Amino acid sequence: MARRAVSAGARLDVVSGVQAAWTQHKEQGYDFVVLPLEHEGTPLLDTTVESADWSQRVVAVVSEHDVDNHPEHEKALVTELQWATHLGVAAIMLPLQGPDCCNLASITNPFVHSAEQIATWIHVKTRAPQPPSDTDEQQEAEPARSTWHWWNQFRSLCTPCTRMGLALELSANICDEEEQERWLGEPVKCVVIPTGIFLTNAKGYPVLSRAHQRFVRRLLKLRPQFMLSGPGSDDEGPYPDRRQHLMYLNHLAVMAAQRSVYEASTEGYDDYIEIPLQPLMDHLESQTYEVFEKDPVKYDMYQKAMEKAFEDRKDKDKIVAMVVGAGRGPIVRRALRAAEAVGVADKLTLIALEKNPGAVRILQHYQRTEWGNRVQVFAGDMRTWQPVAKADVLVSELLGSWGDNELSPECLDGAQRFIAEGGVSIPNRYRSFVAPVSTHKNYTELRTHKDRKHVETPYVVLLSNHTLLGDIKELFEFTHPNFGPPGAQQPYTPDNTRFKIVECTATQDGLVHGFAGYFDSDLYADVMISIHPETHTPDMFSWFPMYIPLQTPVYVRKGETIKAAFWRKVSATKVWYEWAVLSPTTTEIHNLAGRSSFIGL
Amino acid sequence: MARRAVSAGARLDVVSGVQAAWTQHKEQGYDFVVLPLEHEGTPLLDTTVESADWSQRVVAVVSEHDVDNHPEHEKALVTELQWATHLGVAAIMLPLQGPDCCNLASITNPFVHSAEQIATWIHVKTRAPQPPSDTDEQQEAEPARSTWHWWNQFRSLCTPCTRMGLALELSANICDEEEQERWLGEPVKCVVIPTGIFLTNAKGYPVLSRAHQRFVRRLLKLRPQFMLSGPGSDDEGPYPDRRQHLMYLNHLAVMAAQRSVYEASTEGYDDYIEIPLQPLMDHLESQTYEVFEKDPVKYDMYQKAMEKAFEDRKDKDKIVAMVVGAGRGPIVRRALRAAEAVGVADKLTLIALEKNPGAVRILQHYQRTEWGNRVQVFAGDMRTWQPVAKADVLVSELLGSWGDNELSPECLDGAQRFIAEGGVSIPNRYRSFVAPVSTHKNYTELRTHKDRKHVETPYVVLLSNHTLLGDIKELFEFTHPNFGPPGAQQPYTPDNTRFKIVECTATQDGLVHGFAGYFDSDLYADVMISIHPETHTPDMFSWFPMYIPLQTPVYVRKGETIKAAFWRKVSATKVWYEWAVLSPTTTEIHNLAGRSSFIGL
Repeated sequence: MARRAVSAGARLDVVSGVQAAWTQHKEQGYDFVVLPLEHEGTPLLDTTVESADWSQRVVAVVSEHDVDNHPEHEKALVTELQWATHLGVAAIMLPLQGPDCCNLASITNPFVHSAEQIATWIHVKTRAPQPPSDTDEQQEAEPARSTWHWWNQFRSLCTPCTRMGLALELSANICDEEEQERWLGEPVKCVVIPTGIFLTNAKGYPVLSRAHQRFVRRLLKLRPQFMLSGPGSDDEGPYPDRRQHLMYLNHLAVMAAQRSVYEASTEGYDDYIEIPLQPLMDHLESQTYEVFEKDPVKYDMYQKAMEKAFEDRKDKDKIVAMVVGAGRGPIVRRALRAAEAVGVADKLTLIALEKNPGAVRILQHYQRTEWGNRVQVFAGDMRTWQPVAKADVLVSELLGSWGDNELSPECLDGAQRFIAEGGVSIPNRYRSFVAPVSTHKNYTELRTHKDRKHVETPYVVLLSNHTLLGDIKELFEFTHPNFGPPGAQQPYTPDNTRFKIVECTATQDGLVHGFAGYFDSDLYADVMISIHPETHTPDMFSWFPMYIPLQTPVYVRKGETIKAAFWRKVSATKVWYEWAVLSPTTTEIHNLAGRSSFIGL
Repeated sequence: MARRAVSAGARLDVVSGVQAAWTQHKEQGYDFVVLPLEHEGTPLLDTTVESADWSQRVVAVVSEHDVDNHPEHEKALVTELQWATHLGVAAIMLPLQGPDCCNLASITNPFVHSAEQIATWIHVKTRAPQPPSDTDEQQEAEPARSTWHWWNQFRSLCTPCTRMGLALELSANICDEEEQERWLGEPVKCVVIPTGIFLTNAKGYPVLSRAHQRFVRRLLKLRPQFMLSGPGSDDEGPYPDRRQHLMYLNHLAVMAAQRSVYEASTEGYDDYIEIPLQPLMDHLESQTYEVFEKDPVKYDMYQKAMEKAFEDRKDKDKIVAMVVGAGRGPIVRRALRAAEAVGVADKLTLIALEKNPGAVRILQHYQRTEWGNRVQVFAGDMRTWQPVAKADVLVSELLGSWGDNELSPECLDGAQRFIAEGGVSIPNRYRSFVAPVSTHKNYTELRTHKDRKHVETPYVVLLSNHTLLGDIKELFEFTHPNFGPPGAQQPYTPDNTRFKIVECTATQDGLVHGFAGYFDSDLYADVMISIHPETHTPDMFSWFPMYIPLQTPVYVRKGETIKAAFWRKVSATKVWYEWAVLSPTTTEIHNLAGRSSFIGL
């Protein structure tokens, strides 16, 4: 029996003897069977199958009723859907047969919503079957023919439902990289592989082409189920024998399962939507600090930055370093190490300031048990605290996934009072970035709440089932310290509001569900950290990207300019973001006046 | 003093002495003055003006703060808005200075929503001021420059609010007919007329060009206020003397006030949103019948149709006519008259069937006092009633504004059992029609409810402040009687579900807020009634159009194909419509499964 690295199903043209078919395929290592709701006029029926098997082991295939061109076929379609509900199958598989699918959507969508235990897999091939007269050139000239457009039309018509996903069938003629990329933003629940697209290797075993392998590997990140269809190697038995194909798939999945440190560290977080922390308004719990502290890379970078800062101040008699928002002390510890590494431990005065009483208690514990008089611990809010000394090096880690979104600017504006002349802030700069993102899964998740609030809140999400539809653009920038223009009155209060319009070109026809957000930050000199995909600090997993949703997705065509406005707004009590798409169509300004989401000061 | 046919205001550059300015202009026949919130550095201020005058007589003009290109001007803008709120003025006038207005929207929109007593007039000129180097050709080649696009961008960014409207300033170079038409779909609250665009007639008085007159006459239908700006005829006094201009405007308005019968009959109903009747589920009230019966034209047409039907049956020994859903009897009365008119009164058997007990009582009263044994009155639902005779002429008036939307098909399917061989139904056919409509006002009204239900319900609205963005297309058709294909089993139950995709071409760049719905109906032979704008039965006012809204407006560009799908769906207990836009972008299917609106069976 094949090692089960994938969950796989076998497509069969069986409507009776379901129990026997399932038993045999289970032994072969399958997790489910895929059966037609009706085959040659006979409905799917086997009274010996138990409910639990129907609901966990059977995916039911709806026949190809072309209700858009033949509305009179509605009744037959509805009969099948009702039958699937009656059987209580795990999922139904609904074939999309062409670009015209609005009547299909109108008939099936109420079923998707009412059958709460049944998943719906919209069955789409990566390539449309070509009428024989058409040439390849014609197809490329008519992108509306691409099957992605069929799917896009269908899902745009449907009221969002998390139970609806895609059964994506690989075609022999693989779609290009761009199209593959686009499918990665779609909710692929099942990858259908017809045996006909397999090649035979030197040893006579079925294998996929390199191009197909690559696509399957990319799809594996979405953790889909697989389905084998088509004739087997030996079709003398009652069912096609596709054991070798299944073994090959398992082999592929095992090979692909080698994970990076980042992937290992973030496992289980894929597309898990979190509301950003409110470290200023709330006192973080010890657990939360614990999670942060697990990322060695971030602290390595901070230590490296401090080493360079200390090195540059080696000639001074005394170096005062201050860690503001010290939490449970991970950066304090790294400051001590940095000082030792560059040989300035003896001239270092190290101050740790923290506002959270729980964290202060832990700092004091470390002071007693580990640091001794090398560290002075103070309880206080850096925005109002009266410093006991001025810092040559002010160190903080107040960054959010979007850089400034945990109010680092507001905190450091207060803390820069502590900076001595010629002193520095680590970090000295951070920037946020945005890119238009298509992510049906995350958008649909938010839409299930049926309110405005959820689609007007920026979230922290390890974006997995997504695709970017344009280049990543720089959004806001903050530098520290910021004492204002020459001659400005001190203490200077910088303006932390921002307003910027970003533009990019749509890389292909797509549906924009919002924006992905990232940040990078210069800590000191050339030491920087980044979660920008193109410059991501290797293996650093402290920050996941942001997802800034839209109320209603915006359809864009390849080559069109996508233009969006972003605001960072500040009042006496809160900071919030507003955003709007300006082009190719204009949306309402989201989160106007911070009505749905804000960060408390 | 001029006769006040228009409500008009005078724009003045006055920030002090407001009381004196208002007193003088009131005497001249003005209803309000329009004053800058700040003029040459001095804020609008006059402590002698009473609150009631500020709130009813003063419109405050916000200065041109170009916050989109100079975000640092935000503070000055906010200060003015706060000052306007403090004064409690009737309205503020906010100038749109260019196509980039997202920051202006972000700053001002919260004010629009929070200042609940103050209207906001977005000030837009019909022509953008041209940089001197630009030629006319250039402007026409760049439609994005049109000021309508500025406004469209602005309002699309704003959260809908009924207090926000337009102050539309007429330019000397009038916009073309198409653009004028488009403005008629926008919420023009005030028409600004600079004195500079007036011509001088032979007698030396200021007059508008014919083109301007025509546009003003069209705008008058929206009942806007007017505002005169610019230098007066004689500027020796403290204020520009524009009394002759005001007199001319009043004259124009008086001339335009000659109303058609239709306009007189429907006065006060403009853009008043009504939920369609449920005549089957509810028993109509006597008042409702009374309103219906006030339309002589409809009954004239019915009488004409019956005359022709009786005429065609003159040779028969006996004619049985049946009025089903007879209400309080207006058609029964016309049936009697028709029979007399063609001389068949003696051979007519006239049966009136009605399900509403209240209406039956009134029918019985007329029978006793007026009709005698010429009419037989029965109480019953035509879908289930057992007929006492078969009708040669079955007459009904069960039509809604969208033809079939008050369930005429379902009723007549039941009633056709009563039709004798060779018998007819009056009406024998009706069709519904749709066209994409832009109607900011009606859409915004619905959006204030902040729910899905209100934007998924077809309404009856005398669409006034609207413009069609494409041709009117035929939607559904029903014919009666319908005994099915040859040999069909009787009684035959027709399929009253419908599904149709309609297509038209966008006549210009515009924002589709939904669809306008109409119907026409063949009563008998060539006698027909229609509310289709191109074939509207003169002076008939029984039916207003439908407005079928969209959840989110769809922006269309001139020449693009607008494609939309409509469904009429039927279950055991109800009938409902679903609709979706398919192109240029795709919306969700509205009112899926009748979740928001339906007509009960």
